[in-house]
Amino acid sequence: MTEKGVFITFEGCEGAGKTTVLEHVYASLKEDGRKVMKTREPGGIDIAEKIRSIILDPEHTMMERRTEALLYAAARRQHLVEKVIPALKNGYIVLCDRFIDSSLAYQGAARGIGMEEVLSMNQFAIEDHFPDATIYLDITPDQGLTRIRDNKKREFNRLDQEAINFHKEVYEAYQTLLERFPDRIHKIEADMPVEDVVQETKNHILSVLNR
Amino acid sequence: MTEKGVFITFEGCEGAGKTTVLEHVYASLKEDGRKVMKTREPGGIDIAEKIRSIILDPEHTMMERRTEALLYAAARRQHLVEKVIPALKNGYIVLCDRFIDSSLAYQGAARGIGMEEVLSMNQFAIEDHFPDATIYLDITPDQGLTRIRDNKKREFNRLDQEAINFHKEVYEAYQTLLERFPDRIHKIEADMPVEDVVQETKNHILSVLNR
Repeated sequence: MTEKGVFITFEGCEGAGKTTVLEHVYASLKEDGRKVMKTREPGGIDIAEKIRSIILDPEHTMMERRTEALLYAAARRQHLVEKVIPALKNGYIVLCDRFIDSSLAYQGAARGIGMEEVLSMNQFAIEDHFPDATIYLDITPDQGLTRIRDNKKREFNRLDQEAINFHKEVYEAYQTLLERFPDRIHKIEADMPVEDVVQETKNHILSVLNR
Repeated sequence: MTEKGVFITFEGCEGAGKTTVLEHVYASLKEDGRKVMKTREPGGIDIAEKIRSIILDPEHTMMERRTEALLYAAARRQHLVEKVIPALKNGYIVLCDRFIDSSLAYQGAARGIGMEEVLSMNQFAIEDHFPDATIYLDITPDQGLTRIRDNKKREFNRLDQEAINFHKEVYEAYQTLLERFPDRIHKIEADMPVEDVVQETKNHILSVLNR
């Protein structure tokens, strides 16, 4: 067990299976006796939850895209400081469902603010706390949307309803991020059977732990 | 009357008299028949008010300084987009009580995040909408605090109570900003009689209008 923990984030388009894979990997690492924590923003952090509720309030039709990006960054900061960093200091493997790359793909690329601008602003929020590794589950927008529609356990949400073009832009953005951060982001084909995706994800995390 | 409006911000330490001077200048410009609007963040903008209420909630003792700075920037963005920019497009002189320089002085310098970092993050929020001119009312921290204590109309607030050292850091930060943005920020001695401060402020605004 390392003295300092390891910060792993999960990224991908809607329907890539991030949450499912994260749950399985979490259970498996826990079974192995590892100190492991799973979280997602806003992660039950009071201030971050309140910020998130402003973002998601359907009455806020006037919300401008840069306001939204700043609010996501504020919630990210508070969740990072209150929950993620203390766990890392206690030696935990922290598995986080979505993090900075989602903002780069969704706000930066798909909403059109610009990835470099959103990156620079988010660096104010996270400082040098980039993930040690990011698992990117790769699935085409068409496959992802089909999965969501077929998955009866999962309700169709607002983002799912947005145009397929939006999803294509998110997909392209993730490809750009893979090129931009090749050492940090590890791509895994998400159209394999879920056991295989989980195993490959776990193998990568173990290799990061042994670095 | 110019086709495009002019954006004027008012800055200074606690007790410098910003609000009083702004009110008098506003009334005077209005009397002259000018299209003039006064505002301050969050300025009655629903989303910005809600963000502000998160910042000011006394229960949020866990709020980290960068979270706070991001929330101020988010409220600033929304107020700018919903209220200031439309007024400028309609040809108004917009007088705004505090803007980006307050974040640079308070969060950047006095709270110790760093002025350059707070500036860079705030540029994400305001893009190229820097004020056309900024009136900086100069008063030493000692004079400012004495004024607040003597002014029975004005309750002593949380910021007033903070250590005099904090106010000194804010004061020093404004001096740095004067050097950094000499063309934009205009310093006016605030320990003159209020009529003189108002007249000098108005004269400067008129000179900006005639540029």
